[in-house]
Amino acid sequence: MVNSNLDTVKYVAASTRFAGYDLIRENLTLVEEKLLAEQPGQPRLIGDAAVQILQAGGKRIRAAISLLSAANFDADLESSISLAAGVEMLHTATLVHDDIIDGADHRRNEPTLNASLDVKRSVLIGDYFFARAANLVADTNNLDIMKQFSKTLMTILAGEVNQQMSRWQLDRRSYFDRIYAKTGAMFVLAAKSAATLAGAEKTHILAFEKFGHYTGIAFQIVDDVLDFTSSPGQLGKPVGSDIREGIFTLPVLHFAKMYPNDPDLRVVIESQDGDHPAIDKLISKIQASGAADQALHEAKNLVSIGQQAFDELPHSAYVEALSSLGTSMINRVA
Amino acid sequence: MVNSNLDTVKYVAASTRFAGYDLIRENLTLVEEKLLAEQPGQPRLIGDAAVQILQAGGKRIRAAISLLSAANFDADLESSISLAAGVEMLHTATLVHDDIIDGADHRRNEPTLNASLDVKRSVLIGDYFFARAANLVADTNNLDIMKQFSKTLMTILAGEVNQQMSRWQLDRRSYFDRIYAKTGAMFVLAAKSAATLAGAEKTHILAFEKFGHYTGIAFQIVDDVLDFTSSPGQLGKPVGSDIREGIFTLPVLHFAKMYPNDPDLRVVIESQDGDHPAIDKLISKIQASGAADQALHEAKNLVSIGQQAFDELPHSAYVEALSSLGTSMINRVA
Repeated sequence: MVNSNLDTVKYVAASTRFAGYDLIRENLTLVEEKLLAEQPGQPRLIGDAAVQILQAGGKRIRAAISLLSAANFDADLESSISLAAGVEMLHTATLVHDDIIDGADHRRNEPTLNASLDVKRSVLIGDYFFARAANLVADTNNLDIMKQFSKTLMTILAGEVNQQMSRWQLDRRSYFDRIYAKTGAMFVLAAKSAATLAGAEKTHILAFEKFGHYTGIAFQIVDDVLDFTSSPGQLGKPVGSDIREGIFTLPVLHFAKMYPNDPDLRVVIESQDGDHPAIDKLISKIQASGAADQALHEAKNLVSIGQQAFDELPHSAYVEALSSLGTSMINRVA
Repeated sequence: MVNSNLDTVKYVAASTRFAGYDLIRENLTLVEEKLLAEQPGQPRLIGDAAVQILQAGGKRIRAAISLLSAANFDADLESSISLAAGVEMLHTATLVHDDIIDGADHRRNEPTLNASLDVKRSVLIGDYFFARAANLVADTNNLDIMKQFSKTLMTILAGEVNQQMSRWQLDRRSYFDRIYAKTGAMFVLAAKSAATLAGAEKTHILAFEKFGHYTGIAFQIVDDVLDFTSSPGQLGKPVGSDIREGIFTLPVLHFAKMYPNDPDLRVVIESQDGDHPAIDKLISKIQASGAADQALHEAKNLVSIGQQAFDELPHSAYVEALSSLGTSMINRVA
């Protein structure tokens, strides 16, 4: 049973500049349908919430990576769709709970669930999405993938807890651990589990894992750069939202390396107050400092490392599409 | 790596009156160790939270059902331990999020995580426990069980959402749906998945499913009766905590059937206010009405139906122990 609101969903994926989507556009539509398909006994509230979140957009980049990776190894189509939907649903579940943690009232210019409903129901809806993600992944009938899924979920959540515990700290190591957990691990799951599904040989699976790892953290760095270089309208939230929460991303770390004694930086760290008047000044300084460009330069290098994972693999349109994904990510900002 | 706080954990299970625990006491200790075993990369906060919750007690009844069911069919011991720990961890995860939903500050006379930490971190810790539960269940290397697990999780959460949506309503059907989702489904998972793990024949698996179903809902009814008949000290929370949240359990439904026009009942339903002064009067009336005894009578009948599931099965000490579990549940109250 497909939710009747499906046709109202904006296919943001369809409008992306990333050419790789053309190879899997039909499958991506099937994924979209699966994400919105009502389950037996599913309360109406949950279907409505799924529509609300998916309508708000999103690039379905994790689903696309999963589908391209699966297609590269000619994996079973039905299982590929379930897996891609499972990965995207897992991502959706984390977004719902992230918005609770961050107290966010908007995402992509639409109200968040915790704002339009309440925290209690958002907790339950996020939980349901986790369960549905596990259920979709189980539909692949692949034990190895189920294990990858549960490990990934543990990594993501450990990373989120660590992020909460390391706020207001300037620490490069902890930043990279966090963005691996936040985005790298899910990109790894998308690429690696799809190769696993197809029964690809071990060196190929490892290549896809490496691709996911570096592309994922590069993607998160780009996101963190955009948090400083975009307008609030483009972001759908205030500029510098992370630093206001005490979460210091790569542009902040580069700024702090250049200006370790900047008085606004110091006062923000010492006050641990996201509403401190110095924060707006600090954000302006970071924007003017070239720190975002330095972070972007790192992201470019990581994208290259991710692309190199495919060097030893047979050439294919799918590998090419995945490889160009990193480049187009950088082009979002540059 | 076992958490060093393990030896401080109160083994409430060991002190229960239920004789069936004697058959599996060693295995239950192994489950306890697994529940507290630190995972690679696990933040300290999560290990501490696990200790805090498990220390607070709990009868480990779901783990016991799982272990007894597995032992009955001579299932692989290591997988049995993982499965029982997975089921108990799933239960723990739902408790953490339940306490957020209910705004509860105490459980079993100990502060809840949302009270001792905060809602944000409790959401993440609950999520981590869900992930760890999936991970433990995946360690059984059994696809069928993974599917049972994800379906059960969806059922539980759909039930919780429905419970939120059906507050302040007197509806027997919705009550039984809710308690199946809340407790029946997890008892089914505990019994059925253990039989599945051992490769039991289909009719035997169905018998264990039926046992779990009826015993689970009977267990929840007993819990709901205790919410009216215990002292706040025994409950570790106020008497009638459900009705104060607009959740009408079986004693309330029996009272409403006897006294449909009771003015306090009417005013509570119409006000939809958990702090309405009529609630305390209504609770006293329910306590004096015999409604709890009627609910308990229903629970007894359900326990018998659950026990009858074993009628066609070969006799064993494990089946006997499971069967007597229901009886000892009723004895908690009677």
